[in-house]
Amino acid sequence: MGLAIIAPNKSIDEINAWTAVFREINPQLHIQVFPEISDKKAVEVVVLWQHPKGILHEFPNLRLICSMGSGVDHIMADYSPDNVPITRIVDPRLTFSMTNYVVMGILNHHRQILRYIKDNQSKTWDMSQPEIPISVGVMGVGELGGDVLDKVAGLGFPAIGYGNSPKSNFRHRYFYGDQLQEFLNEVNLIVCLLPLTPKTVGFLNKDLFRKFKKGTYLINVARGKHLVEEDLIPAIQAGFISGALLDVFQEEPLPVTHPFWEHDKITVTPHIASITNHKAAAPQIMENYQNLMADKPLINQINKNQGY
Amino acid sequence: MGLAIIAPNKSIDEINAWTAVFREINPQLHIQVFPEISDKKAVEVVVLWQHPKGILHEFPNLRLICSMGSGVDHIMADYSPDNVPITRIVDPRLTFSMTNYVVMGILNHHRQILRYIKDNQSKTWDMSQPEIPISVGVMGVGELGGDVLDKVAGLGFPAIGYGNSPKSNFRHRYFYGDQLQEFLNEVNLIVCLLPLTPKTVGFLNKDLFRKFKKGTYLINVARGKHLVEEDLIPAIQAGFISGALLDVFQEEPLPVTHPFWEHDKITVTPHIASITNHKAAAPQIMENYQNLMADKPLINQINKNQGY
Repeated sequence: MGLAIIAPNKSIDEINAWTAVFREINPQLHIQVFPEISDKKAVEVVVLWQHPKGILHEFPNLRLICSMGSGVDHIMADYSPDNVPITRIVDPRLTFSMTNYVVMGILNHHRQILRYIKDNQSKTWDMSQPEIPISVGVMGVGELGGDVLDKVAGLGFPAIGYGNSPKSNFRHRYFYGDQLQEFLNEVNLIVCLLPLTPKTVGFLNKDLFRKFKKGTYLINVARGKHLVEEDLIPAIQAGFISGALLDVFQEEPLPVTHPFWEHDKITVTPHIASITNHKAAAPQIMENYQNLMADKPLINQINKNQGY
Repeated sequence: MGLAIIAPNKSIDEINAWTAVFREINPQLHIQVFPEISDKKAVEVVVLWQHPKGILHEFPNLRLICSMGSGVDHIMADYSPDNVPITRIVDPRLTFSMTNYVVMGILNHHRQILRYIKDNQSKTWDMSQPEIPISVGVMGVGELGGDVLDKVAGLGFPAIGYGNSPKSNFRHRYFYGDQLQEFLNEVNLIVCLLPLTPKTVGFLNKDLFRKFKKGTYLINVARGKHLVEEDLIPAIQAGFISGALLDVFQEEPLPVTHPFWEHDKITVTPHIASITNHKAAAPQIMENYQNLMADKPLINQINKNQGY
């Protein structure tokens, strides 16, 4: 019985930090780290982040697949055995960071910080229209989206959710499925926190933007692949979108030639809205390792049919 | 019986907006507007904002002094008859704006928005150290300061208050009076929401800054006179202060020659954190007018000994 970490884009330091936590909890654990996995038959648990496509075919005794982050789209987008459960990380610290980043973005739009920073440069004292009235719509109301709605409502703003499927007794107003236009009619600031699934790839595209209220502000903190990037600047030019705060991109790091860097209505941050903390995450994987050994139910297991 | 509005720095449009609300509630009311106050003996209620010094000597039958805003420092700093009560405006909308401005400032420091805006300009993708850990101290824990503490704690940050006098059963950790150093030892972001009184004029000065933890961030949304402006840049240079968000200044508009405009650690906004809304404020004054007529207790009356 053993575990393999397959995360080719993470640094050796980062992998070592995860391994140290694993060993602290389970000193006997047999850990192999990609690309040095010599004994593939011993691997019953894989711990994955952006693994090479098709690699899961190589492990005949696989019993558990663990994402190293909150998202599992990197796993769902590739082959994995049907009967092997997949788990993700649920990290309160991750929720704290994500929510505070999103609330920052919302308040910066509401209070127009970019305008005042420009006014600083030109030494302009302009007290007119100090607030843009906002009504916040959050697409994707899981752990993260739900927390954003709680905090935004707590600050006194209208806050409405939208998701794929019906939800009973949700604590905020909520629209789903084909109620999309009704949802969009009520909001002028959209936060994308959707999971990345085949249904949501490219969901933020020109057909959606045309349904926005004029001047809607967009915050994308989910995945770069949610946004059809070439549709954004035309939607700003057409007035459907007044500006955007983007933390994730189709290609990361965002290439220096990308037009988002220089656009004065677009603020780019380098995928820092929320970063999984190995100290919170690694023990969750060890807990599931023990659960698997003891035939107990897993924590944070995803529903493969929903894809999240 | 009549009312006089004395607010020489407010525009005619603004005065008319207040007058319209007064008339709507009380069509018979005799309203005089400075400088055209011909019948001074008829004035029993004055409604003030930055009135000319000494003018209250001119009204022999004064029974009530109403500030047009949340602050009463402009009244306390001048002559007013001892036995005449003073009221202020308490506006939930004002609290909403103030809190959201302050939370924006706190999150922008925590998540380093100015750094990322610079990185946008140089097309730099730098994921290192995405958060500055913060512990928030609010000086002045009245209506506004208390609400800021509620919201900051709600977002998951340590939040501590400091004020002049003891408070029993306050819902956050609280220090007062000579516990100043203990308070400062626990925080690295200070929000000034103190009332402006003879005790707090110039409270934000070099002697205070020397007691700050190195790298404390400063947000002043109270009054320009709280800050000894010439002490700020030296305190930044000495490392006591890492930066500041300032909405209020000794002289407003901030003169174009002022060094705050160009300093890269100082963000200036043009006194827009919170603006009194006449639709919320004017009815409070009319309510007190009726209370006075009916010998009922006043709302939002200030304690003259405390000065707020």
